[in-house]
Amino acid sequence: MERLNEEQIAKEMENLADWKRVNEKWVERRYRFKNYLSGVRFVNEIAEYAEKKKHHPFISIDYKVVTLKISSWQAKGLTDLDFEMAEYFNQLYNKAEQ
Amino acid sequence: MERLNEEQIAKEMENLADWKRVNEKWVERRYRFKNYLSGVRFVNEIAEYAEKKKHHPFISIDYKVVTLKISSWQAKGLTDLDFEMAEYFNQLYNKAEQ
Repeated sequence: MERLNEEQIAKEMENLADWKRVNEKWVERRYRFKNYLSGVRFVNEIAEYAEKKKHHPFISIDYKVVTLKISSWQAKGLTDLDFEMAEYFNQLYNKAEQ
Repeated sequence: MERLNEEQIAKEMENLADWKRVNEKWVERRYRFKNYLSGVRFVNEIAEYAEKKKHHPFISIDYKVVTLKISSWQAKGLTDLDFEMAEYFNQLYNKAEQ
């Protein structure tokens, strides 16, 4: 999968709620939960999907805040797959018990 | 729970396999797994225990590497509970499918 150029990335970011660009290669979102184990369940859903797609975001759990960071290391930047997955993670969060 | 002093911490670190001191307040260990979902299962066990003890380590999942960082923010440093939990996490890892 090919790395997107700056123009393409800017367009994707416009359509992607609540994610921020960290640097050239990474985008990130922090998801807040009302309780710890809801965040952990969310992480399980993320992980299951990541394994299916063979594309694994960096995940951190800082009490009730789950942070996801995504990039395509093979493409050395951001690809369509990153944005497709980020959008899907947002949908999972919207359906989750927050 | 009271913050341990440097001498007490040094003694605890001697008995705790594979954790390293990050700074005054934190200890850390990286756990490696042969596959991604084994690491995720380990995180679930960590989280369940953390919630029971009402003491939550910082957890990150970077593909097959799970990193735990632990500290007692209320005590502004390291306590007996931190070392008790770190030891328990090591036991969980030793029993886990790595």
